[in-house]
Amino acid sequence: MTSILILNGPNLNLLGTRQPDVYGHTTLADIEAMCRTKATALGIAIAFGQSNSEGALVDHIHAARGVHDGIILNAGAYTHTSIALMDAISSVEIPTVELHLSNIHSREEFRHRSYIAKVALGVICGFGATGYTLAMDALAGHLGQAG
Amino acid sequence: MTSILILNGPNLNLLGTRQPDVYGHTTLADIEAMCRTKATALGIAIAFGQSNSEGALVDHIHAARGVHDGIILNAGAYTHTSIALMDAISSVEIPTVELHLSNIHSREEFRHRSYIAKVALGVICGFGATGYTLAMDALAGHLGQAG
Amino acid sequence: MTSILILNGPNLNLLGTRQPDVYGHTTLADIEAMCRTKATALGIAIAFGQSNSEGALVDHIHAARGVHDGIILNAGAYTHTSIALMDAISSVEIPTVELHLSNIHSREEFRHRSYIAKVALGVICGFGATGYTLAMDALAGHLGQAG
Amino acid sequence: MTSILILNGPNLNLLGTRQPDVYGHTTLADIEAMCRTKATALGIAIAFGQSNSEGALVDHIHAARGVHDGIILNAGAYTHTSIALMDAISSVEIPTVELHLSNIHSREEFRHRSYIAKVALGVICGFGATGYTLAMDALAGHLGQAG
Amino acid sequence: MTSILILNGPNLNLLGTRQPDVYGHTTLADIEAMCRTKATALGIAIAFGQSNSEGALVDHIHAARGVHDGIILNAGAYTHTSIALMDAISSVEIPTVELHLSNIHSREEFRHRSYIAKVALGVICGFGATGYTLAMDALAGHLGQAG
Amino acid sequence: MTSILILNGPNLNLLGTRQPDVYGHTTLADIEAMCRTKATALGIAIAFGQSNSEGALVDHIHAARGVHDGIILNAGAYTHTSIALMDAISSVEIPTVELHLSNIHSREEFRHRSYIAKVALGVICGFGATGYTLAMDALAGHLGQAG
Amino acid sequence: MTSILILNGPNLNLLGTRQPDVYGHTTLADIEAMCRTKATALGIAIAFGQSNSEGALVDHIHAARGVHDGIILNAGAYTHTSIALMDAISSVEIPTVELHLSNIHSREEFRHRSYIAKVALGVICGFGATGYTLAMDALAGHLGQAG
Amino acid sequence: MTSILILNGPNLNLLGTRQPDVYGHTTLADIEAMCRTKATALGIAIAFGQSNSEGALVDHIHAARGVHDGIILNAGAYTHTSIALMDAISSVEIPTVELHLSNIHSREEFRHRSYIAKVALGVICGFGATGYTLAMDALAGHLGQAG
Amino acid sequence: MTSILILNGPNLNLLGTRQPDVYGHTTLADIEAMCRTKATALGIAIAFGQSNSEGALVDHIHAARGVHDGIILNAGAYTHTSIALMDAISSVEIPTVELHLSNIHSREEFRHRSYIAKVALGVICGFGATGYTLAMDALAGHLGQAG
Amino acid sequence: MTSILILNGPNLNLLGTRQPDVYGHTTLADIEAMCRTKATALGIAIAFGQSNSEGALVDHIHAARGVHDGIILNAGAYTHTSIALMDAISSVEIPTVELHLSNIHSREEFRHRSYIAKVALGVICGFGATGYTLAMDALAGHLGQAG
Amino acid sequence: MTSILILNGPNLNLLGTRQPDVYGHTTLADIEAMCRTKATALGIAIAFGQSNSEGALVDHIHAARGVHDGIILNAGAYTHTSIALMDAISSVEIPTVELHLSNIHSREEFRHRSYIAKVALGVICGFGATGYTLAMDALAGHLGQAG
Amino acid sequence: MTSILILNGPNLNLLGTRQPDVYGHTTLADIEAMCRTKATALGIAIAFGQSNSEGALVDHIHAARGVHDGIILNAGAYTHTSIALMDAISSVEIPTVELHLSNIHSREEFRHRSYIAKVALGVICGFGATGYTLAMDALAGHLGQAG
Repeated sequence: MTSILILNGPNLNLLGTRQPDVYGHTTLADIEAMCRTKATALGIAIAFGQSNSEGALVDHIHAARGVHDGIILNAGAYTHTSIALMDAISSVEIPTVELHLSNIHSREEFRHRSYIAKVALGVICGFGATGYTLAMDALAGHLGQAG
Repeated sequence: MTSILILNGPNLNLLGTRQPDVYGHTTLADIEAMCRTKATALGIAIAFGQSNSEGALVDHIHAARGVHDGIILNAGAYTHTSIALMDAISSVEIPTVELHLSNIHSREEFRHRSYIAKVALGVICGFGATGYTLAMDALAGHLGQAG
Repeated sequence: MTSILILNGPNLNLLGTRQPDVYGHTTLADIEAMCRTKATALGIAIAFGQSNSEGALVDHIHAARGVHDGIILNAGAYTHTSIALMDAISSVEIPTVELHLSNIHSREEFRHRSYIAKVALGVICGFGATGYTLAMDALAGHLGQAG
Repeated sequence: MTSILILNGPNLNLLGTRQPDVYGHTTLADIEAMCRTKATALGIAIAFGQSNSEGALVDHIHAARGVHDGIILNAGAYTHTSIALMDAISSVEIPTVELHLSNIHSREEFRHRSYIAKVALGVICGFGATGYTLAMDALAGHLGQAG
Repeated sequence: MTSILILNGPNLNLLGTRQPDVYGHTTLADIEAMCRTKATALGIAIAFGQSNSEGALVDHIHAARGVHDGIILNAGAYTHTSIALMDAISSVEIPTVELHLSNIHSREEFRHRSYIAKVALGVICGFGATGYTLAMDALAGHLGQAG
Repeated sequence: MTSILILNGPNLNLLGTRQPDVYGHTTLADIEAMCRTKATALGIAIAFGQSNSEGALVDHIHAARGVHDGIILNAGAYTHTSIALMDAISSVEIPTVELHLSNIHSREEFRHRSYIAKVALGVICGFGATGYTLAMDALAGHLGQAG
Repeated sequence: MTSILILNGPNLNLLGTRQPDVYGHTTLADIEAMCRTKATALGIAIAFGQSNSEGALVDHIHAARGVHDGIILNAGAYTHTSIALMDAISSVEIPTVELHLSNIHSREEFRHRSYIAKVALGVICGFGATGYTLAMDALAGHLGQAG
Repeated sequence: MTSILILNGPNLNLLGTRQPDVYGHTTLADIEAMCRTKATALGIAIAFGQSNSEGALVDHIHAARGVHDGIILNAGAYTHTSIALMDAISSVEIPTVELHLSNIHSREEFRHRSYIAKVALGVICGFGATGYTLAMDALAGHLGQAG
Repeated sequence: MTSILILNGPNLNLLGTRQPDVYGHTTLADIEAMCRTKATALGIAIAFGQSNSEGALVDHIHAARGVHDGIILNAGAYTHTSIALMDAISSVEIPTVELHLSNIHSREEFRHRSYIAKVALGVICGFGATGYTLAMDALAGHLGQAG
Repeated sequence: MTSILILNGPNLNLLGTRQPDVYGHTTLADIEAMCRTKATALGIAIAFGQSNSEGALVDHIHAARGVHDGIILNAGAYTHTSIALMDAISSVEIPTVELHLSNIHSREEFRHRSYIAKVALGVICGFGATGYTLAMDALAGHLGQAG
Repeated sequence: MTSILILNGPNLNLLGTRQPDVYGHTTLADIEAMCRTKATALGIAIAFGQSNSEGALVDHIHAARGVHDGIILNAGAYTHTSIALMDAISSVEIPTVELHLSNIHSREEFRHRSYIAKVALGVICGFGATGYTLAMDALAGHLGQAG
Repeated sequence: MTSILILNGPNLNLLGTRQPDVYGHTTLADIEAMCRTKATALGIAIAFGQSNSEGALVDHIHAARGVHDGIILNAGAYTHTSIALMDAISSVEIPTVELHLSNIHSREEFRHRSYIAKVALGVICGFGATGYTLAMDALAGHLGQAG
């Protein structure tokens, strides 16, 4: 059974309370529920993780080897600064979708650069919580084609 | 009935024959067929357009006012150079999803900048032809919430 | 009789409906009417053109040779990206005034650069529709001195 | 009665003698006379000032509060380097037109940047002495609309 | 009772032993003692934290919600590289003072940029250990005015 | 029989009248005649095209597939700004020689960058109309070797 | 008796009336009164100065030699452009605190650079009028330690 | 007895499995064994550490004070982004050799910058696992000379 | 009789007391005396001026028209920031030698740029007070040749 | 009789053995033979030179004065770094064609800049050994027209 | 028998006398002696060369083909400016170790860029004369593995 | 007896014939004669050298150790590109005056940067051949003070 790790980075644990004008009122638990429903529909397994630590996110990605077939990574602020996460994705060679709730390209200049996008399968941003299920569709589709 | 314009920019008419290692073997007609099937499933109308001319693409976007509720725009190379297309989207005030077949962030540096993304609802890239149906899901979802 | 071509670029056809907080409610037809009244007062002829296509604007400028004595060019977004329009103005050697409705210098950084200004007689921006009649005064004055 | 301050910056006192190939033979006194004639025609009052000192120009702008309804500012070289003048204009909240005799965009690269333009109502450049009366038209028109 | 979190970032645990020519001989324990004395004088509560981990500092800031009314953050080297800390401060919406022992502007170029300053209430740097009590005064004053 | 498309971009239709100090007095018709003579000498077929529109030039390049064995492209100002033309050349996979009448490297800085050169077989510039027949020699030689 | 010069730069004379959303409603006279009260409490003497002229500010700093033991300098817009003020502070070798009412790091990019900070003892910004008394505390403390 | 800490950063735990074309098939355990053999030959003690967390690496370096005489640091991706690690090395004042398995200068541009190199004794890169024993020779030699 | 204006900019009035490790112990009065002795030897007249104000320096240069045949300008910090002084020199069309006591090219990066040098006859820097008499030799020689 | 110097720079002596995937298998002796055949056909004289030394290449160019009517210069790596060669060409005022075997614009970014092109008659690159005879045609044509 | 060329660039002939605080007191002859001892220990042959001329260094590298199995290159200042040396190494396809006595990364910014490193096997810097024997170990090891 | 080496770089051997509008009609032999006359007047010895080779110029500077007390270096184009010459001057620790015939700051941007100026005693430029005797005065004066 296909399994996908959905991994969230710094400050996403505050989702629903943090800057709702930018990120909306949906909490990370709400998103996890949406994703579980979607996983059932797709007939795939998912795991959900979150950390505010760059190193812990690297650990999560390493641990996915041999366990998960794909990763959906919302690396938050680390997207723009972390070469370590980029290298982790390259290292484990698991297809990874970069995800952002907001459209990072309509925000501050320093949020336009993504190290992760350089090694990601693709990028989805700007669709809020819906982005997670779109990413599941995209990744499941990709894994189905590749499998 | 919700209606979406799916608009494709320069060189996308050659899809399926152009650099298949980057863009795959699916033709634009294949994509249109996929999108029509998806539109039926979503219960929405779509229109499909393509031009190699920046000005004609601006015209297409203008003509969408009062006709379409959303736009999916794969502006190809104009993504990186056209302020005119960015302004056209702002002018018509129709929610627009920026789409790319390839992951533009893993290609040449000059393909990382997007004027269109600054005014788009969101961006989807890297999923090949599947990106079109993901964008339809994203846009239909957005229009459903907003409507 | 002195003749001036007033040429408008991309998205200006939507004037009056497009982003009225930036560009106001006056339409391009209103501006043409204002300019015709002004032309009568100045005792000069004018022609009015608009296109969303960079190439068509180049064609318009070429066609002005031997027909018009001056050009007022609001190139819109092409101002910032079109070397072709700059070359067209150099080629026809017709005195040209660059015009913008809004003050482009108080907007996004990428709107501060103008290729056209490098070869223009002068620049007028920020005065809305009034800018057109100011440009007519400026150009008629210049042509009167030079003639 | 509407009143406009026409303020000139460094080296403009030498006008008519300084680099006539760039700036022409008209003196600042000639321009003042032209402006006074124009003011009579427009039914407005004007005051004329000039200083080579950035600080004195700031003082002039401050002194305009409650006295003048608009400012025409040819800040000369300070245009490109003075944040203090930009802040002075913001502070007094008087509509200000930025003016240049020459087309600064066809000159050296360092003359393309303007701090003043960021807070100005609009910009007129390249029309020589005529620019002053165009600016009076533009500003009087603006103040008439706003008043 | 007003409560302030005083949070210190990487390498500040070595204070008093690390590069004393730059940072002086006072230890972090000395500073904590100074701050507790000051807190008593101001009639406010304080908590003191330190971590060398960016993620742990984000966690500290998150945990301050509903507990502390203000934060004094000496983020050390993360000041210049951490968008995650910037986002954490935005997320919890607690007034935050950025603090540095040394004058970062007279050091290496890469220490002149601060992501945290973009969302901070204010910045104090260059006054050594005294900066902490100045920041307490500043923050207590701000909270008193706002409360 | 080997066939070469000779395609000219914006403002080249004015050749012979436009800035003769930069581009000389030879017209595009003169050049076509020279090229036809050369083609006869080389025993190859040629077709000649010109457009001021970026999109139309893309169309011309697309239409060359299966018709022409090589392209000589003088893209004029689009050389420096058009990723769409670069992509068109990549798409049709026809060997293309970039040509300029003037030496673009001794002109303005913004004329030094060429998107087209990145995918061209080679570049010839600075030899005026002679460049076209040199390019025919070069391309015919290349096609002869490859054929 | 320790004496401090509190020197204010361009546009600060308008304080309380200028852009109150950025700078608040307190006037410079209010600040001087606050500072005099604080000086009494600290048992130090102060002098207060303001000028809109960069040269006059340099003169003020020169005149402080042998008269004042420290300087608090709010150089306003000159902070970002004046090497002359930086050199003046180096020349007189009087400990100087850079002060700003607003948090310059959360404003326009060009307000992030400070020449003065390179030679200042420390920097305080973002605390409005309170910053002046904080700076007096900081400077008096520093002079007490050094004395 | 001289003691050296050999510290490895993010993703190096995957060595031997991660991108073998770049990093080879040797595991970190293999390297540790090689280093232990070398340490015996050199008559020195070594300790071996690895973490994916920037903060934990800072902690490791702090803990080396009074315990180790030198550090060999392969900081992986943090080399290019971590000022905190640079400061940690400065803080503990232990001679440190920067090490990389691959030649970072023949890889992506963003891997050419090293914060750590600014404070390191020296740098060795491009020799794969052999680099560790070279670094031990270099550091032992340096400590022998200095001791 | 040939006459030269020797004009000194900001902070040079403090010469001999200001940062003697950079600028030496000679005062401006000492330099004036040296220059007067040299003038006698050369059989030329000199005038000596100094101001800390950019505007006053512009005024000095303007006043030199018809009075002095050459200018020696040590503009101090304004060298690097003043386009107004550059324009003043262009305006009066008096041959001007740029002078610096220190070698500005071995100091901070921002002291390497000179607006004045763009329009100066030549530049002399790094020879301390001797530079003034060298400049007198250079300028007198130039005027002698030109006269 | 017209005479052309064909001058080759660093590493071109290894041609035919050096990186044949980039430069092909033809040796410099092969090229010289091709050029001698071509010279006979054109009825011109040629001289052939090569050096790995920038200074020796400058000497070669100097020696061409009064001896040769034109130069074909393949300066290899010095193309991108040598202002001395650029100045040498300006000094001798002999028409010079810049030549490259490979298309330097499709290679590394640092190979896109050419100092030599700024003063060259024209540039030919990307046609391998054939480029030499094309350059001979171009230069002979130019000299014939000019002669 | 394996043979290594040890090649030194500009100013290294002065080693031991030149800036001893940066480069130490060891002469190049001392280093050659150390290297010969090391070569005996490794059972390999070495040759030693030095030149202050970029072209002569290119010649040395060319001459190594078929003679030496590896090169240790301390190119001194040419490291940062010479594409010709980079190309020479690529041309001869001999494994090359880049060596520096000092840690170039802790020196001026312009010494951080290395063209040679882009094509080198690896880099060793900062270990003074010891670096040469480390490089011999590294290169001998590499050649042993590859052989 | 004080001895000065006057060293000239690339293309200066052509002086008097090369671009006379920039460099004048005086030959290098004329300059040497002027300098010998001046040397007699100053009671010092001089030696004169010129080379078009960067390496040979480095050799000249090395050979000056123990022979000459000062160097006047007109490095021509190498001024802007040669770190090797900069290092040579640092190595021999002989006071060096940088000299240029033309005012390099009023020429192309790439002639504004000087590596040599970073380590020179001072710089003289723009005074043509006279600059050499000014430099002799400056250097003799400096050596007299230091001796």
